[in-house]
Amino acid sequence: MTYCVGLLLNDGMVLLSDTRTNAGLDNIATYRKMFVFEEPGERIVTILTAGSLSVTQTTIARLQEAISDNPGADGTTSIMQAPTMLQVAEIIGRTLVQVTREISDKLSTMKQAATASMIVAGQRAGGGMRLFLIYPEGNFIEATADTPYLQIGEHKYGKPILDRVVNMETSLVDAQKAVLLSMDSTLRSNLSVGMPLDLMVIEKDACKIGSQRRIEAGDPDFAAMSDAWSQALRDGFRRITL
Amino acid sequence: MTYCVGLLLNDGMVLLSDTRTNAGLDNIATYRKMFVFEEPGERIVTILTAGSLSVTQTTIARLQEAISDNPGADGTTSIMQAPTMLQVAEIIGRTLVQVTREISDKLSTMKQAATASMIVAGQRAGGGMRLFLIYPEGNFIEATADTPYLQIGEHKYGKPILDRVVNMETSLVDAQKAVLLSMDSTLRSNLSVGMPLDLMVIEKDACKIGSQRRIEAGDPDFAAMSDAWSQALRDGFRRITL
Repeated sequence: MTYCVGLLLNDGMVLLSDTRTNAGLDNIATYRKMFVFEEPGERIVTILTAGSLSVTQTTIARLQEAISDNPGADGTTSIMQAPTMLQVAEIIGRTLVQVTREISDKLSTMKQAATASMIVAGQRAGGGMRLFLIYPEGNFIEATADTPYLQIGEHKYGKPILDRVVNMETSLVDAQKAVLLSMDSTLRSNLSVGMPLDLMVIEKDACKIGSQRRIEAGDPDFAAMSDAWSQALRDGFRRITL
Repeated sequence: MTYCVGLLLNDGMVLLSDTRTNAGLDNIATYRKMFVFEEPGERIVTILTAGSLSVTQTTIARLQEAISDNPGADGTTSIMQAPTMLQVAEIIGRTLVQVTREISDKLSTMKQAATASMIVAGQRAGGGMRLFLIYPEGNFIEATADTPYLQIGEHKYGKPILDRVVNMETSLVDAQKAVLLSMDSTLRSNLSVGMPLDLMVIEKDACKIGSQRRIEAGDPDFAAMSDAWSQALRDGFRRITL
């Protein structure tokens, strides 16, 4: 499986993805699930992926091809030319569902299907920040002030911490802590989510990557944060009276 | 859905279940999911249930009938006469799978199936405490020192806290806190799990209910504990440095 989470805050967007893929328990590999399309200052679109690797890789490759290699690329096919982030989400949704159909057709003789979902975070110069969750069927929902985060993959373990500490006013520093602790809970409880992690911050109106960091297994800062959180939970637990 | 959890500790067993059932989101009701079969000092068997209500109710009713109404009841059919807790688990598993088959046969014309799973906690005089998870297919697993808890239903939200604070040495008081906080995280993040709750403690070798408590929505102690835990999480979160 996978765990990816995106936050849409007043100050910017924070995105985190794991890198574990598996075909069965005995075939585990590391693949990046965070993909950036950027023209600094003009537009940034970051995509997080969950689901069948053949679907997500082909979808990302088609999106890339529609930008760079296709002489007929325009705002209806290229996510770097689409006039709004809504239309970016629609292009990604259409591409995802087209790829899903093609691959599921191939798999149908095996009575199998392949699906994927995506989180899309983006902003273009002059527009607002937008954060979408694209479903396997190509339709999508958008983060709002009521629920400023979106998750794909193994979302349940890491939801309680987000429900408690994240709102639109959360600072970008606290937001990074929140998504990392949400991931930490998921990593501890589910083997199908694994290090390394990819963490990205996009500051409001910058329309470019604010910071991007790969956190490797054994990263001392992440380990220290994880230990401190465990200790805080145990301390808090001890102080609670029944 | 449902969330039920059972802990097997050196000092005894702690069991907690919610009471929400739903047929779709627009048909929600409250049903007890904790059932006790007790001959104090000789034997206690507590069953927690998750899944299709028609399956769980019929299974419990059959188990009850096999104890009380059946003149031919013996150790192969009555969970109050079975010579070991392993055989209790086997009777429950057999009954569950029989009921599941009968009901799924009825549903097959609608292309539907009904399933359920159960946690069984028990001890008989002279035997050890045993805690089983019975799968819908009737087979089962047992809690051990490595993993002294079992969960059924919506288990993911409340797993991180158990993974962090529970082991065989956990006291019965701390164990009650742990299952209640595990439930609290689940209640906050998933509407299909709901108050009131049923909490039971079975002390080691007592072979009877140690304490049993229904925690209603708005219970001031539970609300205070929930608030204190939220505060502890937020305080802990604030102290963590990235």
